[in-house]
Parts: sequence; structure tokens; C-alpha cells
Amino acid sequence: MAESKASPRVEIHPWHIIERGWRPESVRGAESLFAIGNGRFGQRANFEETYTGDHLRGSYLAGVYYPDKTRVGWWKNGYPEYFAKVLNATNWLDVRWSVDGEEVDLAQVEVLEFERILDMKTGVLRRRAVVKLRSGVTAVLEAERWCSMANPDTAAIRVRLRLDREGPTVRVAAGVDGNVRNEDSNWDDAFWRQDGAETPRLGQGVVANTTHKTHFGTATAMDVELQVTGHSVVPSMELAPARVDAVWEVRPGAGETVEVVKFIGIATTLHHPESALRAVALYTAEGARSAGYEAGLAAHVAAWEAIWDRSDITIEGDEAAQQAIRFNIFHLNATYRGDDARLNIGPKGFTGEKYGGASYWDTEAYCLPFFLASHPEQVARNLLLYRYHHLGRAIENAEKLGFSCGAALYPMVTMNGEECHNEWEITFEEIHRNGAIAYAIYNYVRYTGDSGYLATHGFPVLLGIARFWAQRVNWSEARSAWVMLGVTGPNEYENNVNNNWYTNYLAAWCLKYTADVADWLAGAHPEALEQHTAATQFNREGECRDWRRKAEGMALPALEGTRVVLQQDGFMDKEQRSAADLRPEERPINQHWSWDRILRSIFIKQADVLQGFYFFQDDFDTDTHRENFDFYEPKTVHESSLSPCVHVVLAARLGRMDTAYDLYLRTARLDLDDYNREVYQGLHITSMAGTWMAVVEGFGGFRVREDRPEFEARLPEGWKRLTFRVLFRGRELQVDLSHSGAQVQVLEGEPLEVRINGEVRLIPGR
Amino acid sequence: MAESKASPRVEIHPWHIIERGWRPESVRGAESLFAIGNGRFGQRANFEETYTGDHLRGSYLAGVYYPDKTRVGWWKNGYPEYFAKVLNATNWLDVRWSVDGEEVDLAQVEVLEFERILDMKTGVLRRRAVVKLRSGVTAVLEAERWCSMANPDTAAIRVRLRLDREGPTVRVAAGVDGNVRNEDSNWDDAFWRQDGAETPRLGQGVVANTTHKTHFGTATAMDVELQVTGHSVVPSMELAPARVDAVWEVRPGAGETVEVVKFIGIATTLHHPESALRAVALYTAEGARSAGYEAGLAAHVAAWEAIWDRSDITIEGDEAAQQAIRFNIFHLNATYRGDDARLNIGPKGFTGEKYGGASYWDTEAYCLPFFLASHPEQVARNLLLYRYHHLGRAIENAEKLGFSCGAALYPMVTMNGEECHNEWEITFEEIHRNGAIAYAIYNYVRYTGDSGYLATHGFPVLLGIARFWAQRVNWSEARSAWVMLGVTGPNEYENNVNNNWYTNYLAAWCLKYTADVADWLAGAHPEALEQHTAATQFNREGECRDWRRKAEGMALPALEGTRVVLQQDGFMDKEQRSAADLRPEERPINQHWSWDRILRSIFIKQADVLQGFYFFQDDFDTDTHRENFDFYEPKTVHESSLSPCVHVVLAARLGRMDTAYDLYLRTARLDLDDYNREVYQGLHITSMAGTWMAVVEGFGGFRVREDRPEFEARLPEGWKRLTFRVLFRGRELQVDLSHSGAQVQVLEGEPLEVRINGEVRLIPGR
Repeated sequence: MAESKASPRVEIHPWHIIERGWRPESVRGAESLFAIGNGRFGQRANFEETYTGDHLRGSYLAGVYYPDKTRVGWWKNGYPEYFAKVLNATNWLDVRWSVDGEEVDLAQVEVLEFERILDMKTGVLRRRAVVKLRSGVTAVLEAERWCSMANPDTAAIRVRLRLDREGPTVRVAAGVDGNVRNEDSNWDDAFWRQDGAETPRLGQGVVANTTHKTHFGTATAMDVELQVTGHSVVPSMELAPARVDAVWEVRPGAGETVEVVKFIGIATTLHHPESALRAVALYTAEGARSAGYEAGLAAHVAAWEAIWDRSDITIEGDEAAQQAIRFNIFHLNATYRGDDARLNIGPKGFTGEKYGGASYWDTEAYCLPFFLASHPEQVARNLLLYRYHHLGRAIENAEKLGFSCGAALYPMVTMNGEECHNEWEITFEEIHRNGAIAYAIYNYVRYTGDSGYLATHGFPVLLGIARFWAQRVNWSEARSAWVMLGVTGPNEYENNVNNNWYTNYLAAWCLKYTADVADWLAGAHPEALEQHTAATQFNREGECRDWRRKAEGMALPALEGTRVVLQQDGFMDKEQRSAADLRPEERPINQHWSWDRILRSIFIKQADVLQGFYFFQDDFDTDTHRENFDFYEPKTVHESSLSPCVHVVLAARLGRMDTAYDLYLRTARLDLDDYNREVYQGLHITSMAGTWMAVVEGFGGFRVREDRPEFEARLPEGWKRLTFRVLFRGRELQVDLSHSGAQVQVLEGEPLEVRINGEVRLIPGR
Repeated sequence: MAESKASPRVEIHPWHIIERGWRPESVRGAESLFAIGNGRFGQRANFEETYTGDHLRGSYLAGVYYPDKTRVGWWKNGYPEYFAKVLNATNWLDVRWSVDGEEVDLAQVEVLEFERILDMKTGVLRRRAVVKLRSGVTAVLEAERWCSMANPDTAAIRVRLRLDREGPTVRVAAGVDGNVRNEDSNWDDAFWRQDGAETPRLGQGVVANTTHKTHFGTATAMDVELQVTGHSVVPSMELAPARVDAVWEVRPGAGETVEVVKFIGIATTLHHPESALRAVALYTAEGARSAGYEAGLAAHVAAWEAIWDRSDITIEGDEAAQQAIRFNIFHLNATYRGDDARLNIGPKGFTGEKYGGASYWDTEAYCLPFFLASHPEQVARNLLLYRYHHLGRAIENAEKLGFSCGAALYPMVTMNGEECHNEWEITFEEIHRNGAIAYAIYNYVRYTGDSGYLATHGFPVLLGIARFWAQRVNWSEARSAWVMLGVTGPNEYENNVNNNWYTNYLAAWCLKYTADVADWLAGAHPEALEQHTAATQFNREGECRDWRRKAEGMALPALEGTRVVLQQDGFMDKEQRSAADLRPEERPINQHWSWDRILRSIFIKQADVLQGFYFFQDDFDTDTHRENFDFYEPKTVHESSLSPCVHVVLAARLGRMDTAYDLYLRTARLDLDDYNREVYQGLHITSMAGTWMAVVEGFGGFRVREDRPEFEARLPEGWKRLTFRVLFRGRELQVDLSHSGAQVQVLEGEPLEVRINGEVRLIPGR
């Protein structure tokens, strides 16, 4: 069956995502848009009942992946053998219905009414359908489910069916099913070894599956009950390979409701010994059932309330923007809890299979600011620790590419620290990612003031990265500078260029920052430095000298006679065009132009030089900002979802509010309005953090400078008021911005100096 | 079973390739080395009898290919959907033996003696094995076969078996078998539809197979007979799906010889209507049998004699070189007959599956000189016509990449004119191939004087190519020149560079040459020009002006203050190293370095700038030649089999005879000595033509200038005498060179002015 790629249509509402009316062509898209999760696991919004139309089943467990054998056309030395994939795991959704032998299947029956609502405030997904069966019977189906934010190993589903008449026999089968495959398997390999299904008691079932190769053990249990208008009915149980079902046959009276409530417990070897998995999963499901559906739901809702309490953003005067920012905050929280340093933020979260691997440089460059501001410090720290734990593999990765002496190259895409990507121009050359990882350490320390992190974990990572850059440059006699050849910058519409300004600038910064940190450690944490020195054969004097020399002598291409820096060597040889010259039918160029044409054109996929201006805003005066923004923005086609946000922040800083708002619109509702017609593949989770950045850093002017938060109201014209909260060094701040003024309150914590619209104020504590 | 990649060991002999002793680990390699063919079809040297050891069955039919679905890691816009593959076709080799039920299989029995000889003079492959069966019986097996050069639809096999005792029952099954697969299928698809097998008469069988998608029909027939010491025995016939066998059971006396003679007839839809294929194939096999083995062999040998008569090279004083050059001439002729403009010269000929597609720029750049000099003009002309016939597809190919108005980009790899390759840096960027195709037209006309070809076929091809270059450059305001961005030159160890000198120089030459040809046509062939003008909307005045302007203003990077031209922009930023600095364990770098490291290094895979100096030798004075050779040769790692030959020609011109001979040795016996340990995949057919070029153009100093052949003896020290023949404008020349002198004779044809060692002589006709 061909994939149907149509976009779902949703209504605007401040707290809800609402789809009304039955559109089978956009089921795949809606499955992405209405996905839910709790950071530990998640689900595409598949139907509970049988559905034979086009769709993509997807249940995912954070950190459970499979190394699929790499597929390439032409092998290049250094490619990884495997590509770690987000893994479609045991399906725990099934509640299948048949009425007098006729399966309730929205692809086969007449759908009279259809409505689906995701309540973002509570993290509950509800669906209601009225269908007419071929037998003439009309049935009302209501389903509700949630992945518990309070107890992240549980989920619950409640489904109700009501017929318009008495008489028909209703058969219900509610199960867990380990017979799953990934749609995107490269070689059609089975990813799972099936360890069997069991049904210890009536209504209970558990399925155990273990991944091949990576040996992640999982058990998924259900404890399920059925009532007909309040009267419990005992099921019979059916066991099949890797599948167990509770089955009922009932004959409800006219208007009587058949209700199935299904409690799910999930256990994996990430948290439990393999031998205990089934017992733990069953115990969890049973515990949820004992507590009861309403009690579980209440705890779940309370957990979401706490999240909203510290991270909600309100936008008055723009309900579409209001909905969008909440959608983004919702999914960021549904994807990452921050309580486990083994996990990270996959670009599609739990909403699709595309892009294997969990971690791109997106995490450090786009997601970290969100988690820093809206979660306890420990969460951002866990994101840093993820890379700290992968340092050994980053060193191995660099060795594979010919580097030595502890140089580290973090992978472009990874699950467990090993490189997963296999395009030479990306895998081997898009090395600026290393700089973003160093920058994230700097950013974390700047934000939190937790300089001790540098001593315990930050420095070894910075050291590996600095050593990499120091080896990656070479001296050019011809230009009397250190050059960096053969790289790909953030603008992936250029490959294998020389002296990408962003990469060189970032590398020089890394070298200098690492030297500064090393020298600071010598005074502040001499024992820690001594330990690291011993472990890494660090030669502070020699290496720091070498780094500073290379940082100072780094080639930084620039356009003579202007303040414009050049994206790379030879940039001015390109045909000088503006994105505005492109005909609409040519856009996006990545769908209409051949790759070589894209490469030799001037068009920029996403912020590249400007990404550097974003990271290092204070290194450049406003004129330099303006000249570079005006040079690069018009050449940028924003064909990455990560592009507009950086431009919004810079445009807002320059007071280009129209540009800022136009660009904001391109990213804020990217998935809700399915601009790129690809929501059927899943949501753009990491770019959601970029939208947060656009709002809070762009329109809210949020910065941290000199241990002080700063805010500057630069609201789009149509916005009446923007409020948000940020956590900062033990305080919870309430920020309230409008065109006429700005208020910052400390809701909790000590008094704090804050710069508001340029003026430093001491905000009293509370 | 793992591929065994060991190198076969062969003896040095002026006319024979000889392998003595049984080495099962090098069977795959020997199958390549002893492959035979007649330009219409060919065979790896598989055994006739059952062989269960590691090997690769391979029977190939010229022009019969399959478009295998492309496999890539990451799709790029513009990639072709299919990759045309040389196709493993019906196996006609089988003559299987069993003795008292024990299969004769060299992998299972004890091999007491083993000898294999390829007689290059006659194109006959012979093999002799003495084996001891598990039963204790000793058997002598002798096999001989040839693919008829005289009647290119036939082949014959004669196999003899003699036991050391009376008594055992010998079962023989000789068959044709259409159950074949390609080892390198991307998706394990079946390439063939089986149209059935028939056995119209005892001893006769035919198998018909048609390729899926491309619908090439083929029929392969046998007519086979068996004698025991001169007495014929009638077989029984066995039919299986896509397979037919003639089967005998005989009980030979001690020392009696069982002889099977198998005549093969092959017919394809390239030459016959589909409905007639079986009849034609059977008729051909039967005809061969009627004529008799010895008569067929005699005709075959006579055809090879005629080939050697016009193309043999003798090297006195260096038997290894003598054997090697003949091996190369043998395989070039076994691969390409030149009688069919639909065919071309695949890099592996009929010796392996690797590298699908028949045509690379190798044909124009390396093979054309050989065929020009050693075959009637029609053969080289057919190589040009091949591209002429593909012009429409080259235009489509360019359109796919965004070019317009009749611009043509010939594919990197093709069978039928469609692009087959799918690495963006090659497919889209290694566009210098277009220039080689234009240069081949120039080279052909220069050699043959057939300027009429320009009017009939040459001009439209040049026009499409010139239009491509004119659109491919863009004006750089910054350097006031036409620049060509994003290309890969012949040195594939650089990807996506700007202003590759070779490509720019060649493009400028194409533009100017095409303008010159257009202007010349206006005077010499006005009607032809008018026709082309109408068909192509050619605007002579405007386009020629544009071409000349771009040719003159083309950016040609150069090293200031020297005569050295620069391989590409930024070349001097690289770490300046010499291949001599590489440690032996790092070489070849393509096996030991990651791809990015190779790319940013200075090391050159194969002649790039120097390829330009080879093509345009007369454009540069000797000092410029010397400076560039001395700059680039030391940086060249020669990791393409096509690299050394060009360097030999240039080194010999500069009198660097030691360098020339060293480099010559790296290519001359590339396959015979299996330098790169890859002969198991097949032979390097196109680089064999490069070796010919090294000998005839390098050591023989052969050039054509001003309608006159020139020779200049520059023999390696150890060579006493070098003789070769060349065909030139109706004459057959015998060239006899030694350290003391040079003689050229016209063996046939009119008198001719020839420049010999710098002196113009009139050679009398004969």
C-alpha cells in the first residue's frame, strides 16, 4: 500500500489539538500529530481497533535501539557498519472489536462522525467515532489514553463501545503484541528475538522481546478489564507466539456501554535485571489497575500541571501562536524527561521511524536552552553527561579517521556514542558538531554558574575536542594561517569546503576556551586538573600554547572592505543571487534542483555564518551583526526546520520585527500546519526547541550575561502580551512582556538582579 | 563461502599464460586471468566439471545488461533509479563427470597434477589435471576451449577423461544451464525470465532466457558428442527448468579416452528476431559440429593470426614485458570487436561482474588510441558513434540536472546512454568526461583525416557538449573570470572542488574547438551545418561568440611566479607533501586512510593536471611540461590503474626514462602479477589500453602531428628492441626501434611521410 502523505487538518485552540471529520488519507499524518509520550516511551496515535487503511504502527521505548546494517551505494573508508535505529517495540494498543462477526475497522465501515482531541494541558488523547457497520448497526466508539507522566512505566487506555440496538454479539480482544517490524529496516532483518508471551491470570498478559545484537530486554504487560454498563465480565485468554489477548463475547442491551480499561506496565533492561522483566511489567500493570483508572489519571494530570507550571508560555493576541508554542513544549516534554543521562532527544522523538539515532548536534545547539530554562539544572546536566559518557567512543571515532593522542570527534548521529551516519560529506566533514558540544558546556556553566562541572566532567570533553581541532587544521604557507580543509558547515548545501567561517571560528573559540579552562583549573581545582592530566597525558603548557597559537592564527575568510565574513573560501565566486529571485515552483530547491546545482548555488539551507553570530553575539558589534544578517539572510532558503529560529533571534536583536515574525511563522506551526508535507513521517521535535528559542530569546530577549538574566521585550506587532517562566539558579521567574512594558517577578527563591529592557533591577525574592 | 582473493601465480612466457600446480585459494583469480572471449561474448575460466570450491561462474554476452535497482544510503536529487549491470548469462560450460557415482570435483578429490595454459596467439585455453578419486581411481582430465574469433556466435569445448583402470562406470553430463544469478545483484532480484529449455534431438539442447525489464532475448544451444577411443556413443537427454543435459554412462577400458566435444551456438535479440532465437542458436551449434572441431579451431586461429599480424608488439630483452603487452592486446581484442556501435569496452570486459555498465571515459581517453592504431578506422568510428547515438539521452541527462537548450552531459557510467552511477561527487560532478568525448572526436579526425565525420556525426555531439560547458560556468565578479564550481577532476581524491584546472582547460578547449568546427563547417559543409542548425536551433554567431568569450576568460588557477598550473583553487593551502613521505604500511592510502583524510591531503589518485598535459602536449613548452611533471608526479599515488600510463608518456618525453620505466612496471603486469590483489574480481581491461599507450606513445614516441605519424625511440635501458605495427590512413606501418636506430616500413599502402627521431622521411609504399 502506498504511503498516504496528506496533511491532517487541525483546529486552533489554546490548549487542544482538534481534528474533526474523517479523512483516511491523512491518518498517517494524524498519527504523528496526535502522538503522546512520557519521555520513557511513546506512541504514534494509532487506533486501538483494527485498522486496515494506510498507517504506521509505532510504539517506541527510549534508549532501546537496534544497529541496522548500513546500506550505501559506494563504501568509503571510515563508514560505520551499523546505523542505530529507533525501534518499533511491542504494540500495547490493541482493543479490537467485532459485532456479529463484523470487524470494526474504520477503513471498512461507514464513518459518520470522527473527532480526535489531544489535550496538551493534561497529556490525554481522546477520540470519538460514530460508525455504521455493513450490518446496519450503528456504533459509537470512544477512546482515551495517556502515557503516565507520573509513573513513567505505565500507560492506560479506556475504550467504550455503544451500539444503537440490542441483539448483536460483541467480541472484544485486547492484547499486547510483540510481532512488530520497522518499516525502515535496511535489509528487512528481524530486529527482535521473541522471548514468549504469558498469561498468568485472567485479564493479564505479558510479552517479552529482546533486541538482536544490542540485547535490550523488554517486557510489556497488560492488566485489562471489561464492564458492560458497570458489570465486570471475565475474559478468556488467547496465547499466540509473542502475543496475548484477553477475549470477551458479550451481548449488550441497546444503549448499554461496553467499556474496556487496559493498564500497561513496561519494563526494560535499562532499569531492571533481565530475569525480573516480566514480573516487574506485570506488577506495574497490576498496580495501576489496583490504584484505578481515575487515580492514575489524576496523578498523570498533576505531573503535567507541574510541567506547565514552570514552562508554560502565554501569547495574548495570537491564538495560533499560542497553540503552537504549547504544542512544542508538550512534545519536548513528552520526548525527554531528563532523568537518565543515557537518553537524548531524537529528531522525531516517539512519533516516527525516520532518522535513526537519538542525538544530533540539535541537542546542544537548539534543545539545551529550553531545558536549561524550564527544567531543574540536573536535566541540562544529564544532556551534557550523555556526551561525557561517550567520550571514549568519540576518541575511538577520531582514531578511526586517523587522529591520535586523545583527539575526540563526536558522531553526527548516535545512540550509544558510536557514529551511525554514512554520508562522507556529513559523517567525516560536518565536524562543527564537536564545537556545539563544547559550546553547550560553556552555555551550561554560564547559565547555571556550576563551574564545578568543568572540573569533574567538562574538562576531559573539552580536551578531546580541542585536541581534535588542533590536529584538524594545517598550516598554509601560502596564506600564513591555519586552515581547515574539507568540511561541511551547518549549511549542508555546501559540502567539502575549505575554511568554513563558522567551523573555523568555533574551533578557534574551542581552542581558546579549553586553554582558558585548563589555566583556570590550575588555580581553582588543581587536584582535578592533576587527575585529568595523568589520565590524558595532558601537557598544559605545550598544548595550551599550541591551541592559543592556532586560535589566533586561524584563517577566517572575510569580504574585503566590509564587515562581512565569508561562509567559506571562494564564496564570492558563486553567482550572487537572492532567494527572492527563485521562482515559487523551484522551491524548496531540495525538491526541485539536482544536488550539484544546489551545491554550486549561493543558497543557504540554514544559518551557518549566522549560527556563529547567534552563539557569539557579544563578539560582534551591531553594525557587524547587521551587515552579515543583511548579506546572508536573503541568500537563505530555510530548508531546514532548524534555520528560522536563529534568524528570528538575530532579526529581533536588530529590530527587524517584520522579518523576525515572518521567519517565526515558518517554524512555529511547522508540524501543525504541515508546511513541508512530511508530518506523516513524524514530528520535528528538535526544531520545536528552536521555536521556543525564537519566542523566549527572540521576542523575549532572554540572555544570560555576567551571571544575570536579561530580558528585552521585542514583541511582534499582533502580540499583546507574552508571558513565560524561567528557572535560574534556584529561582523561578515569571516574565511578563508587552509593548508597553516588562515585568519580571521572582516566584520562588532569593532576590535577583535582572536586566530588563536595558535597565538592571533587583527583583525581590519570595 | 567467503571469497578467496589469493593471487594466481603464472609463469613468464612470450605467448602463453601458464599456471602450474593446484592452488584452490586462487581459483577465483585464475578464473579472471584465464578468461577468454571474442568481443561478442566471453567466459571466466570456470571449470567444465563440477566445482564446489570458491569460484565465480561467469558467462557474459556483449550488450546484454540488466538495470538493477539503485542502492544508496541517502538519496540525492538527480540520482538514476537504475544501474545497468553486466549480466551473468546462460552457462554453457558444463561437462560434469562422475566415476562409479563419485563426482569429479577438484575441491573434493586429490589433485596430483594441475596445469592451465592460455595460448594468446591462438586464443585457446587448455587445462590438464590428474586427480585421485576417493575410490582410488586416478583420472586424467584434459580440457580445451575457445570462443570463435572467426564465427563470433560459436564456441567449442573438448574435454577428455582417461582412467587408470578398467571397470568403473563413467557418467558424463554435458549441458546448458539458464539458472544463473549475479553475485552483485543489489536487491537479490532475478534478472532473467526463463523461457524454457528444449532438446530437439539427441545431443542437442537449447535454453532460452529473456532479461526482465530490458527484454533482451537470448538462446544458447549446444550440440554435443561423446566418443570412447573414437567410437561415438548416443546420449540420453535430461530436461529440467531452464536446463538441458546430454547424459552418457560408459565403461571405458584401462587407458581408453572418453572424449566430449561440445559445440555452442548463441543468438540474441541484438542480432535476430526473438521468434528465431532458438532455431538460430541450434543451427549455429549444429553447423559448428558439422564443420568439425578441427576446422572450427583452424578458422578461429586464423582470425587471431590476422589480429596479431596488425597489432603485435615485440619487446626484445624483457620477456615479462613481452608477455604482458601481449596479454593486454589479447584481452582488448577479446573484449571489443568494433563491428557494432551499440557496444563498448567495459572496465572488466567479460572477466567479472564488478563495475556495472560498459562505458566510462576510459574508452575515449585510454582505449581509442589503441583501436585507432591497430584496427581499421571503422572500429574507432564505432566507438564515436556509440556516443553519437546516445546524444539524445545525454541531453535528457543534462535536463534532469537543470540544463537546457540542448546541453548534453554524457553519463559517467552507462550501457545505453542513461546514467548508471550514483555518487553525487562523481555522477553530477566528474563532468570532465564530457570533454574526453569531444577530445576523442578531435583525436579521431586528427588521426584518420576523416573530417567528414564532423559534418555527419561529430558536430551535434560537440554542440551539445559546448552548450553544456557554456551553461556550467558562471561569471565571477570577484576574479573577473568564468569559473566552474563544484567539480571532481580525474583525480577522484578531490571532490567538489572549484576550478579544477584540467576540467576548465578542457572545457575552454571544447568551446573553442566547437566554435572552430562550426565556422569550418560553414565553409566546407554548409548544407550539413544548415541541417544541424535547424535541428538544434543553433545560433552560430551568438553561440560561437559566447563560447570564445568564455574559453578566453576561463579561470585557470596557477602558482604565481612559476609555470605550474594549479589542480584547483586552494591547492596550495594543503599540507605540501610527497608520496615518498608516506610510510609503506599506509599505502595504498585508499585502503588505509579515511575518505576525508584522503580528500584534504595533497595526494593525487591519478593524472589530473598531467592528463591535460597529455591531451594538449603541444600547447606547452618543455619547461612548462617539466615543471608541472616535477610538481605533480611526486604527489601522485597512482591508485588508479589508469594513472601510470599517462605519466610514462610524459616522463619519456622529458627523458626521465627511469621514472618512465618504473611507472610502466606498475601497470604493465597489473593483472598478471595481481599488484592490487583484486584480480579475483576480474581484469582491468581499459587500463590495458593505457599500457599499450605507454609502450607505443611513451617508449615508441608515436604521435600524429600535421597529418604525419611521428616516432621517437625512447627505449628503457633493458629493452634491446621494440617493434610494433600501426595502421595509418590506409597504410600498415612496421616500426622497429632500438637504442641505435629507428626503422619504419610501409608494409602495405601508398608512400608516406613519417617523422622518425625528429627527422622527416618519405617511406616508400608497397
